[in-house]
Amino acid sequence: MTALDIPAGSPFGPENLPYGVFSVGGDGPRVGVRVGDSVVDLAVALGSGVFAAPTLNPFMAQGFERWVAVREQVTALIAGDVPDRAVHPVAGVRLHLPFEVADYVDFYASEHHASNVGRLFRPDAEPLLPNWKHLPVGYHGRAGTVLVSGTDIVRPSGQRKAPGDALPSFGPSTRLDIEAELGFVVGTGTPLNTPVPVDEFARHVFGAVLLNDWSARDIQAWEYVPLGPNLGKSFATSISPWVVPILALEAARVPLPGQTDPEPLPYLRESRSWGLDIDLAVEWNGEEVSRPPYREMYWSPAQMLAHMTVNGASSRTGDLYGSGTISGPAKNQRGAFLELTWGGQEPVTVKGEERSFLLDGDEVVITATAPGANGGRIGFGEVRGRILPAR
Amino acid sequence: MTALDIPAGSPFGPENLPYGVFSVGGDGPRVGVRVGDSVVDLAVALGSGVFAAPTLNPFMAQGFERWVAVREQVTALIAGDVPDRAVHPVAGVRLHLPFEVADYVDFYASEHHASNVGRLFRPDAEPLLPNWKHLPVGYHGRAGTVLVSGTDIVRPSGQRKAPGDALPSFGPSTRLDIEAELGFVVGTGTPLNTPVPVDEFARHVFGAVLLNDWSARDIQAWEYVPLGPNLGKSFATSISPWVVPILALEAARVPLPGQTDPEPLPYLRESRSWGLDIDLAVEWNGEEVSRPPYREMYWSPAQMLAHMTVNGASSRTGDLYGSGTISGPAKNQRGAFLELTWGGQEPVTVKGEERSFLLDGDEVVITATAPGANGGRIGFGEVRGRILPAR
Repeated sequence: MTALDIPAGSPFGPENLPYGVFSVGGDGPRVGVRVGDSVVDLAVALGSGVFAAPTLNPFMAQGFERWVAVREQVTALIAGDVPDRAVHPVAGVRLHLPFEVADYVDFYASEHHASNVGRLFRPDAEPLLPNWKHLPVGYHGRAGTVLVSGTDIVRPSGQRKAPGDALPSFGPSTRLDIEAELGFVVGTGTPLNTPVPVDEFARHVFGAVLLNDWSARDIQAWEYVPLGPNLGKSFATSISPWVVPILALEAARVPLPGQTDPEPLPYLRESRSWGLDIDLAVEWNGEEVSRPPYREMYWSPAQMLAHMTVNGASSRTGDLYGSGTISGPAKNQRGAFLELTWGGQEPVTVKGEERSFLLDGDEVVITATAPGANGGRIGFGEVRGRILPAR
Repeated sequence: MTALDIPAGSPFGPENLPYGVFSVGGDGPRVGVRVGDSVVDLAVALGSGVFAAPTLNPFMAQGFERWVAVREQVTALIAGDVPDRAVHPVAGVRLHLPFEVADYVDFYASEHHASNVGRLFRPDAEPLLPNWKHLPVGYHGRAGTVLVSGTDIVRPSGQRKAPGDALPSFGPSTRLDIEAELGFVVGTGTPLNTPVPVDEFARHVFGAVLLNDWSARDIQAWEYVPLGPNLGKSFATSISPWVVPILALEAARVPLPGQTDPEPLPYLRESRSWGLDIDLAVEWNGEEVSRPPYREMYWSPAQMLAHMTVNGASSRTGDLYGSGTISGPAKNQRGAFLELTWGGQEPVTVKGEERSFLLDGDEVVITATAPGANGGRIGFGEVRGRILPAR
């Protein structure tokens, strides 16, 4: 038995307690909690078989009361001595995709991002389309290509047509981009024709991850009318391995910045808003190029879930939904290189080189922190990916 | 032991042999093959545990050679005497969703449909967008709301804004529609960065089903820019319970009707086309209102799969993709009521009443047949759904 050593100021202190799936050596993947620089094996520490599973899904499906109870158990556990065989240094474990993704939906909830993209993709029209302030616009993405942080990203090929070309051609994307987002994972699903009221978000959504919605802008620009993005996005979406519980985000709650003109329809009105004061940072080859502020997002994750189910659609344990690119009003707060470099016309300097889109060998790391209980800060860890050449 | 009685001219003769998942009484769901008016329990008849599963996924994952071998075994089996306890009258079984859906993608492969919708949704522009003849346009839909035929459809509610309204309002859809489609299910998935060549379609796709992509046109019209349809579609997609093997569709293969101007890019060029001569019929409250011809489709299902994976996206056992609405050139060949009634401006007569979109209590049944081996016709059964009032 050992007392866990939690470094002072660790973003993985007792206010956080994010869940992940890890393995050591040849053992099968299982559920752990990150505490400081350690991973606590919950099947060993708490003796419950649900944590011996290779995904968080069985635990998440047990529901809100159980999430609260386990969080209390873990809090008590790490305050005292923990069995040695339940503790692994995080540097010595392999981290896996933490949950099996059911459906994946990506929203478009930043007014700054949607306006910037509107100006870039439709320069002759109003940047925001008429529906944008009335509903959280979103679309379904490919669940099967959600990957854990650290998975290399092979540059996608596809059809793209430059404005001056008469015909499309096939080849590797030349405008490969990132989108810095948060992802939210549903723990407790709902049957058909049972919309989730906007104020019941925290009873249904288990936690949040960092999400990088890799985007091939040239493929996307050619394909996306009229049914939306497909191959420009479907090759890969990376998420961080640690799922930060919604229960750990109470101290991060802030009002939303807008929604007064127009006011949202009643099913989207929150009693108390789920705006979140989370600071992201985007590193490109080790140099920080952007600090997207989540508190600037127009729509809350509670509104997204209420919207997604208001038509009677069911939800399932493992449903993942992304916030859409997080961009603030300032240039260095933009969460996609498309915006940061204004479509490639205003390159940024990365390690002394002028850069617009991603080159082979580039690596992007997105991190985030938020206020935690007791005045400290909690961390989301990172979502990391490196670009390999097209095959 | 009994010889199976197959009625003369049955669409479920030995050339078809579609697979489904059925249950009898309180027993758990298992895999069966439809023969005439009987269901043959494959776990009992062939003694393989893979058929005792509640979905086709484990069998489909065994791959092409195994699909061929089992089809030969079943063909031999039903030519002789079949154990009595393996045979159930189809009228006495319950049919379930035949496979667990991994990702669901819906295409838009009918030139007649895409042109009609373009004229209706964008009256001042070219009906076909510039990309349409270069790639099979498609988007991801909601896998979790794919339902088996016979499941009632509750009218969805959502935001919709009529052209004359200043603001959107919330309420039940008043323009609820169908889309008559075929769906294709992937049996053998592919890892990341391993595109499926267009000529390897039949090694990867296990079978085809009828698919009704229920669509709330008022919700869709308001939400769909710029990221495509979402809540207008995500409430329900119905499929037929019998999966017709691709192996049974050889006799239905026909050339595609177009693709000369422009010629598709090399990754979309088939050595021998997977155009399919399948005749659909749409019944509205028991009256046939349309006969959509699948042979008119511009893009083949082999091209759809090649396109979907050419960017490096993986595919999984249970991936389902829809063809998009099947419409022919004639008015009575249109596979959506939006087109059939020209946006509601030209109602059709159904059982003596003028009708445009679906009313509560309406029932829609889509059926299809195709040429089989030996000169007969094979059937897809039906996909059926009835509209219940909004909750």
